[in-house]
Amino acid sequence: MSEGESEGELEYMDVDRKLVDRIAKDSVVWSCFHGLVVADKSYQASGFYPGIGLAHAPFALLPARFPEKEWREASDLAPIINHLVHRVSSDATFLHESFSKSKKLDEFTSRLLDIHSKMLQINKKEEIQLGLHRSDYLLDEKTKSLFLVELKTISSPFAGLSSLVTQLHRYILSRYGKLLGLDSERIPANGALDQYAEALAKAWSEYNNPRAVIMIVVLAEEQNMYDQYLVSTVLNDRYPFLICYNTYNITTIRKTLAEVDQQGEILPDGTLSVDGEAVSVIYFRAGCTPVDYPSESEWRARLLMERSCAVKCPSISYHLVGSKRIQQELAKPGVLERFLENKDDIVKLRKCFAGLWSLDDSDIVEKAIESPKLFMMKPLRKEGGKNIYGYDVRETLLRWQKRKTIEDAAYFLMQRIFPTISSTVFMDHGLWIKERASSELGIFSTYLRNKDKVIINKQSGYLMRTIGSTLSYGEPVPWGFPMLDSVYLTDEPNNT
Amino acid sequence: MSEGESEGELEYMDVDRKLVDRIAKDSVVWSCFHGLVVADKSYQASGFYPGIGLAHAPFALLPARFPEKEWREASDLAPIINHLVHRVSSDATFLHESFSKSKKLDEFTSRLLDIHSKMLQINKKEEIQLGLHRSDYLLDEKTKSLFLVELKTISSPFAGLSSLVTQLHRYILSRYGKLLGLDSERIPANGALDQYAEALAKAWSEYNNPRAVIMIVVLAEEQNMYDQYLVSTVLNDRYPFLICYNTYNITTIRKTLAEVDQQGEILPDGTLSVDGEAVSVIYFRAGCTPVDYPSESEWRARLLMERSCAVKCPSISYHLVGSKRIQQELAKPGVLERFLENKDDIVKLRKCFAGLWSLDDSDIVEKAIESPKLFMMKPLRKEGGKNIYGYDVRETLLRWQKRKTIEDAAYFLMQRIFPTISSTVFMDHGLWIKERASSELGIFSTYLRNKDKVIINKQSGYLMRTIGSTLSYGEPVPWGFPMLDSVYLTDEPNNT
Repeated sequence: MSEGESEGELEYMDVDRKLVDRIAKDSVVWSCFHGLVVADKSYQASGFYPGIGLAHAPFALLPARFPEKEWREASDLAPIINHLVHRVSSDATFLHESFSKSKKLDEFTSRLLDIHSKMLQINKKEEIQLGLHRSDYLLDEKTKSLFLVELKTISSPFAGLSSLVTQLHRYILSRYGKLLGLDSERIPANGALDQYAEALAKAWSEYNNPRAVIMIVVLAEEQNMYDQYLVSTVLNDRYPFLICYNTYNITTIRKTLAEVDQQGEILPDGTLSVDGEAVSVIYFRAGCTPVDYPSESEWRARLLMERSCAVKCPSISYHLVGSKRIQQELAKPGVLERFLENKDDIVKLRKCFAGLWSLDDSDIVEKAIESPKLFMMKPLRKEGGKNIYGYDVRETLLRWQKRKTIEDAAYFLMQRIFPTISSTVFMDHGLWIKERASSELGIFSTYLRNKDKVIINKQSGYLMRTIGSTLSYGEPVPWGFPMLDSVYLTDEPNNT
Repeated sequence: MSEGESEGELEYMDVDRKLVDRIAKDSVVWSCFHGLVVADKSYQASGFYPGIGLAHAPFALLPARFPEKEWREASDLAPIINHLVHRVSSDATFLHESFSKSKKLDEFTSRLLDIHSKMLQINKKEEIQLGLHRSDYLLDEKTKSLFLVELKTISSPFAGLSSLVTQLHRYILSRYGKLLGLDSERIPANGALDQYAEALAKAWSEYNNPRAVIMIVVLAEEQNMYDQYLVSTVLNDRYPFLICYNTYNITTIRKTLAEVDQQGEILPDGTLSVDGEAVSVIYFRAGCTPVDYPSESEWRARLLMERSCAVKCPSISYHLVGSKRIQQELAKPGVLERFLENKDDIVKLRKCFAGLWSLDDSDIVEKAIESPKLFMMKPLRKEGGKNIYGYDVRETLLRWQKRKTIEDAAYFLMQRIFPTISSTVFMDHGLWIKERASSELGIFSTYLRNKDKVIINKQSGYLMRTIGSTLSYGEPVPWGFPMLDSVYLTDEPNNT
């Protein structure tokens, strides 16, 4: 169908073009028959209704190599991070103090904090707490170290599609592995979809109202809706593939924040009722970013849900723990000790903390202007702008210092990490293309507790994302958008 | 999501709008996760590559009622028709005489006959014969009789998608049947996909070259490619659903007629080799209509394949038996007796023959002008134009008589059949709409023989298609394009 463009070697995919064509077409057809799909932006209205304008999800044709030792390290951190999130979320003083250190707090976080304060005022207790988190790691090629670069405590997308990509890669290797010299057994199982559904179902069960539904809070337009529908499909007991072992019969409904505002009410006993249906669990797949709240209606909905006795995934305090500001605080000396007792856990976790600094910190800003190659600038939230690398860091900081706008910038500084760059084949819009790329490993985790009883606390599958990378000032800089990928475990310390 | 437009009653779907919304969305999501999809014409290039511009296949939300007695009648005819096709195909004299009766034969059939004659000249024998046929029936409301209105011996699409629609309807009724007062057990099993794949696999096995592939002859652009990919996916042992019980590991390749011309050759031992691969079975999903042969290249390919020792599905003689001309001959008194021995079979089959007449037949043309309501005019091939009904039959025939163009018209006359019209809900492009509609039942059948040994001869699933109908001169006339549907068996003689 298509031809690769780059002329470099395919490395471990150094196979003939005809075979790549065959694997590519085979894997695209597999995707269409297994729900590994997204709503295609170029097709109008595809994000509004299921069933129109579908395309296979963009993915890497073969799994990305990743050293087994670091893979286990990241997986082992999942329950520790789950525990940490819960402990931090319970420390209201720490949360408010951390945010109060910002000279100027962005409006979005302020409003989340307002809701949090209101809940403190009314002494609201969350007995059942459900966390579906994702910790994202980069493997630094120079130091061979694993760095935690992001912690998502709300929405955490791709549990569904990433499980399917793993299945796809296992299928490809079971079929073409001999020709490619690859072993499908080296791809670790990915139970993300199964375990996300399991955690939601168990939370529903703890809530203990058999007639209540699970409500997924969604955007009106969502290109990634099939990832969400995979979860609800498993909850409704419909997904036919063997990757899901559990069966449920739980009704899910999808509502936007505005619909929750219009149709929602809190009954006298605290039950959240939306459009006449009692809601047991609220699963946020929207509401994580300022653009999700275009009017007061959405904020009213958020407050309403928080006031109700439905299980929130996440609660407002879990949501706040995922903010960059908290990660910066946690990275400071002595802070982890406030929340974790186990010394080993603290050592393991701290080892993975990438340096994160607020732009309020003038010492670090000076250091970054001096040695920009050791830093990168990241927006506080995904939609806030692009990452800034290399000499652009110096130029941007100098420009902002001059204009004295630095306090307003919704950016922070992060220690620069250099992931391994290797050749890969991307599948996008039915065509394959060979690229230089680097990968980021996301570890899903699930956490459920009812009062003092921890019901679930575990690693729950993974998301590998591989992104095209070019050289800028002799250093790799990612571009484009990430392709779904999975992990091919290797014995080497790194991709060599 | 959408609202129905018609205000008439929903008959056995007389349920509330909110429930229809829920079933509709549920079924569309099911479709996306099970491969019940087509390439959406409105999305450029969607018909050229898999994986882009997909939409759920258009379908009826609930299965169409059909009386069990007539359902069994149609199913029981399948092996008789298979046998008839084979017998007629073996009678070269009958074939050529039948076509020679046409005053002017269309060019397409002439060229097929040319190939057939060439094969007779070289005394080509087809030892392994594979038929994947589909017989289409209408149930006449007035006479309560079943009429065979079409026999397809080439391409016979929708074995894949129709199997999925049956699964979908069973799923819907298992989930909502109680609310709807419907029983999923009343939907007969549909093994079309499974059995088409089985027949192809057994033909491959009879050919007895484990390294040979099955070649699917396709169009360069094909909106219905997923229906085809379902068959190849089962052959490759990849379709994960429980509707397919057999597993194979047969490689399939897809080639256009032009590609077969460019890449194909016949090896000294008679093997067809295409792009270096030995072909065991040729499965035509293109080549059934004149537009599939835009140049001499396609005709060269067809001749090349016919000359080879690959199993053709269908051979040129099987293909010819499916033409309207042969059906007209078979409907004449005494003709069936030439091919079938069993008197009961002949009675059963003749009972279902709708009157079919060539426009050469001036007596019938006069009768049709006199009583146009008893006839309809159908194009000889699907792409030849629209059906003509009622007084338009008289006007058209009179106009053609005047212009003396009647002999050139690629139409034939058929006894008018009045199928039952009932309310239905169509799902199209993610939206539901309530319509008046009528249904046509297609019975798939498979037939495989090697020399004198009949290996397979059976009914193999079904295709129900339901089409919107409006009243014209007080009589129902179909419009739009058919929706995939399945059968809901009833005890009544007809839909009352």
